Amino acid sequence: MATLLIAPMPAIPVSAQQHDAWYYESLKRNKRSWSQEDKEINKKLAALEKRFGKKPNIIYILADDVGWGEPGCYMGGKLRGTPTPTLDRMADKGMMFLQAYAEPSCTPTRLAINTGRHPARTGCNTVLWPGGPSYLGLAPEERTIAEVLSDAGYHTAMWGKWHVGDTPEMAPEAQGYDYAHYGLYNGAVWGWLGVEHLYNRKEVAGSAHWYDFPGVKEYEEKYGIHLDGYMRGIKGKGREETGRLTSPEDMTKFEDISIKEICEFIDEKAGSDKPFFIYWATYAQQIASSPRKYRHAEGVDHVNNQAAQLAQHNDHLDQLLKTLEDEGIAENTLVVWYSDNGPMYAFYPNAGFSYLRGEKGDVLEGGVRVPAIAYWPGMIKPGQKPIDLLHVTDMFTTAGRLAGVYDKLPDDRIIDGVDQTALLLMGEGHGRRNMMFHYSGANIGAVRMDQYKMHIIPGGGSSGLPSMKIYNIIRDPREEHGKMYPYLYLVSPFQSKIAEHNEMKKKFPDRVLGPTK
Amino acid sequence: MATLLIAPMPAIPVSAQQHDAWYYESLKRNKRSWSQEDKEINKKLAALEKRFGKKPNIIYILADDVGWGEPGCYMGGKLRGTPTPTLDRMADKGMMFLQAYAEPSCTPTRLAINTGRHPARTGCNTVLWPGGPSYLGLAPEERTIAEVLSDAGYHTAMWGKWHVGDTPEMAPEAQGYDYAHYGLYNGAVWGWLGVEHLYNRKEVAGSAHWYDFPGVKEYEEKYGIHLDGYMRGIKGKGREETGRLTSPEDMTKFEDISIKEICEFIDEKAGSDKPFFIYWATYAQQIASSPRKYRHAEGVDHVNNQAAQLAQHNDHLDQLLKTLEDEGIAENTLVVWYSDNGPMYAFYPNAGFSYLRGEKGDVLEGGVRVPAIAYWPGMIKPGQKPIDLLHVTDMFTTAGRLAGVYDKLPDDRIIDGVDQTALLLMGEGHGRRNMMFHYSGANIGAVRMDQYKMHIIPGGGSSGLPSMKIYNIIRDPREEHGKMYPYLYLVSPFQSKIAEHNEMKKKFPDRVLGPTK
Repeated sequence: MATLLIAPMPAIPVSAQQHDAWYYESLKRNKRSWSQEDKEINKKLAALEKRFGKKPNIIYILADDVGWGEPGCYMGGKLRGTPTPTLDRMADKGMMFLQAYAEPSCTPTRLAINTGRHPARTGCNTVLWPGGPSYLGLAPEERTIAEVLSDAGYHTAMWGKWHVGDTPEMAPEAQGYDYAHYGLYNGAVWGWLGVEHLYNRKEVAGSAHWYDFPGVKEYEEKYGIHLDGYMRGIKGKGREETGRLTSPEDMTKFEDISIKEICEFIDEKAGSDKPFFIYWATYAQQIASSPRKYRHAEGVDHVNNQAAQLAQHNDHLDQLLKTLEDEGIAENTLVVWYSDNGPMYAFYPNAGFSYLRGEKGDVLEGGVRVPAIAYWPGMIKPGQKPIDLLHVTDMFTTAGRLAGVYDKLPDDRIIDGVDQTALLLMGEGHGRRNMMFHYSGANIGAVRMDQYKMHIIPGGGSSGLPSMKIYNIIRDPREEHGKMYPYLYLVSPFQSKIAEHNEMKKKFPDRVLGPTK
Repeated sequence: MATLLIAPMPAIPVSAQQHDAWYYESLKRNKRSWSQEDKEINKKLAALEKRFGKKPNIIYILADDVGWGEPGCYMGGKLRGTPTPTLDRMADKGMMFLQAYAEPSCTPTRLAINTGRHPARTGCNTVLWPGGPSYLGLAPEERTIAEVLSDAGYHTAMWGKWHVGDTPEMAPEAQGYDYAHYGLYNGAVWGWLGVEHLYNRKEVAGSAHWYDFPGVKEYEEKYGIHLDGYMRGIKGKGREETGRLTSPEDMTKFEDISIKEICEFIDEKAGSDKPFFIYWATYAQQIASSPRKYRHAEGVDHVNNQAAQLAQHNDHLDQLLKTLEDEGIAENTLVVWYSDNGPMYAFYPNAGFSYLRGEKGDVLEGGVRVPAIAYWPGMIKPGQKPIDLLHVTDMFTTAGRLAGVYDKLPDDRIIDGVDQTALLLMGEGHGRRNMMFHYSGANIGAVRMDQYKMHIIPGGGSSGLPSMKIYNIIRDPREEHGKMYPYLYLVSPFQSKIAEHNEMKKKFPDRVLGPTK
């Protein structure tokens, strides 16, 4: 296997994968320059492979509800009461994306990073809720990043919040991960009950617990699981419950367990002749935990769970980076930290924060534009803050490229992710995305084209005019000045892009998941 | 004079000036630590004075309507279509303030930086408009920063937008400036008429020109000035008109003239045995100009005057810094760049931008929190981004301290500015301000205390409860979650601070300006 892995790459990656319509246009327009870039990139990657004797390791960290304005490098951090020195250092020494996007909510983004596809295509486009229909989640027919990288010879592992399905066939150990230690949902239901004031109580009189929701008990019995359990899964061997997330302390502890195992995994695999892939879906900064040690984060006036968790997470990141350095593999490891969506203000003051308008669930910038940082010493030039568009699905495709299997990504379905290796290795202006669809559930909620964004307003258009407002995101980052004029000339291009997108769905229809399946 | 200037400073600056009530409390609480700090600061300043043989030069640059989100270092710049590499470099090599505040509008901030006092105290608390009452403006009885620094042996000069009074006795050359080249108002009225679409027209059918406002012509005749004129004033010699700001080209040209003269002034005074003070009230980024050379600023979809002016201003800053370096005086010169208030969205898309709620005129953060950068190689440690509170009046008091005349600031009136030398020279956490009054015209509109801010809602309070909402600015930077609970305990402290503030006004009443004066 090892000999195969260090085989020379073709000068230009040949893609058999199926892109969306807009990308083919872009490819045609940029063929010459991208081809040149690819040669240069391949040289860099080949030199690295020669040096380390294997493909680069990849670590994707998906944070929870962290808004564009929360980390210090995004003018949050100490200004929000929680300094984030390690995240800031990753930005300083790496690349901080000013226009990185996710899907607007939790499950959808987790599906997107795992499949490289908009969740609507996978048949599950909404946030899963404990005890909901068991057929919803990451369909086994989807090809996951862990499956792709396993086939490319990677060790694969995940930690944290899975949240893309409860059944054994939807579990991470059945979806390509060699090892997984995870919780199904957000856990720590105490969070939803206002953990701030209840921290030391064991019961809340009169409050509904989701255990009592209709169907939950039956569901748990049927699948032999606890919906608040955390499980250890091994590929080919199934899973076992290792604990339950029933209190803030459990959640704090689970985060500590995760980072401990992650560092051990890195220590163990550093010397392997195979590279590794880690998907760490950290619980930070879901409001449900409240690590005691961090409960007096600087500048916070009173106990704030969200702030405390962010502080804990920052220290965990520090342990992670230190482990990579100690093992001497930092320069062969791409680390990307990405938030899953914008903040959820319903939990204020235990909420994240965004400077942009909107929140989790919205296709407004506040819902979908998120902090994201890439760190790869020696490969990513330090201190870059590109404005190139990046989408969370790009993480899938970029991983495929780095692992040398760009030409083996699925070609029987549309992959929305774009290879962003050029952006990482060559810097600002080398991003390969000038368009983006922002899905709102099953439908397109907004479309981004260069600096313009058009929101699709459901039920509009009866006057004969398209039911749209166009925003110049560069001049109007908070989407306060939606106008038709002077952007009338953009309506046709937007509409034709949507038509082409929909046209391709005839050939590659969205998956339909249902009880009959 | 020179020998006097290098006389040793007392170990701890003795202040004869009159502070506001809250500051005396703060002083009492911090006496020991501030006294220690002052010793250290004095050592640093004495060493610098020994090296250069004079007090440090001071350059204050006041920008126009630039919001917290406009310069690159505030997540604007290229993300807003106008890279600001020089401003960003000043931040990188200096100190970028994350919580710097101005008055909510143009004339008030200009009064504040010149007097160190809230404009309400000076008798003029609103934006002056061409042809308004001639008694409104910077009263000759006010003691200006230029007067203070002139008496301390500084060369003093100003360029740009004066906008604190039209009459000869309110002119900069009568208010302490040796030299001044300035316009009274915003000039380039074309801006107000929608310059974007009118750039090449000379007349607009049916549009009101402020020349035609009632009283304007009589006013101009009475004072022998043009309200859109720009004038050169020399201390003791009066002023003469050097041109008129009647078109965007004039304004572009005037900015070019300003920076040229500023650099010549620096070249000339660099070798003087006296230090200099420059107050550059740049027209950037008032929307009225539109420098051709910069009209295609990167990322801007069409001609955008505001973007073009910001790009021009950035280059001017570069010239300024280069001149200081060429003259070998960069290390003896404090440069502070400060915006006068938040953006004015009425001019969108030729408007500035803030990530914070509110705009010019509001005491919401978007109106009063502004970008501000201090640059002083060798004295200010590079790369700092303190969250310490800073107010534009502090510029007055800090200048007094640096010039060695802290003990000679006025003691017959309240000075709102606080000496922030410790923040500059010792870094984050050494700011000397934990409170701030945000005036809205003649009245207090909001009060800041540490991380909390209380808005005063006019006409409220009839229910018996105070008419207030309290915001935790750290957790809620956009002031979206105003609450009484859990901040009920803060109402009394806020109210007592306001009561003390008002009590002191009995002894030091606000100046009253009027036609009889």
